[in-house]
Amino acid sequence: MKELLGRPGSVSGLLLRVSQFSCAGIAIAVMVTTDRFAEFTCFCYLVSSMALQVLWSLGLACLDIYALSKKRDLQNKLLVRLFVVGDWVTATLSLAAASSSSGIAILFVRDFHFCTGRWGLPCGSYKLAVSFAFVTWILTSISSHVMFWILSALV
Amino acid sequence: MKELLGRPGSVSGLLLRVSQFSCAGIAIAVMVTTDRFAEFTCFCYLVSSMALQVLWSLGLACLDIYALSKKRDLQNKLLVRLFVVGDWVTATLSLAAASSSSGIAILFVRDFHFCTGRWGLPCGSYKLAVSFAFVTWILTSISSHVMFWILSALV
Repeated sequence: MKELLGRPGSVSGLLLRVSQFSCAGIAIAVMVTTDRFAEFTCFCYLVSSMALQVLWSLGLACLDIYALSKKRDLQNKLLVRLFVVGDWVTATLSLAAASSSSGIAILFVRDFHFCTGRWGLPCGSYKLAVSFAFVTWILTSISSHVMFWILSALV
Repeated sequence: MKELLGRPGSVSGLLLRVSQFSCAGIAIAVMVTTDRFAEFTCFCYLVSSMALQVLWSLGLACLDIYALSKKRDLQNKLLVRLFVVGDWVTATLSLAAASSSSGIAILFVRDFHFCTGRWGLPCGSYKLAVSFAFVTWILTSISSHVMFWILSALV
């Protein structure tokens, strides 16, 4: 159980956190550099949710670096409980944000044809941002399951 | 561990499954009786996802009734693994469907003002269907966590 990939305070855990905040950061960068994204509530929610993800994953990456440098074990009940709740909340918010934004992107592309003609919305950029948000969710979901598994072994 | 609320083959487990397929059924009924829902891809996806949820929860409710009537124990590794995967997949699809549809509903209400005037879309019904889809997700998410917890005790 202690050798589980992606556990807190390990190199694999650190890599997972770095991937999470990188993907979330790219999703934010792509979305905010896109024309007229602020006109749509769900795209603003995507940016907020990804910003929360960046803060959470960056914080835990710093904790992993500290644990690795000081050779500390982060697997105690209280900390793992905090990680389980945090990862579950951020994973759920990421999936909700990615799904709602993909719903809007699909509406623009397939149902309203807003990507061409008079509207000419930058749907390619919207889709790219949404894709990175989905990758962020997958990575956070992995962390969430690893933490839940570790917690079940601790209690 | 064996007395966990919502475990398979128990009365609480059966009630959870009945609540899941009832809420999913109401979400489908509200959406399909709404004007012009079929014009929007995400609303059709909501109906498909909720239909899958009804099938899954109804199947497991029947299994719970069988286990209760025959006093059988459903907590073996293979079955619980199947329940974990099934609950996780249906919970994820339900959240994605509810979120994407709520994204569209928010767009119609707040950003495009399509609920009044020339368009006059039945946004109240869309919101009601989405609310039931979110309740379905919460209930399935509870089942998913209970199953994951039982599995961690079995392996």
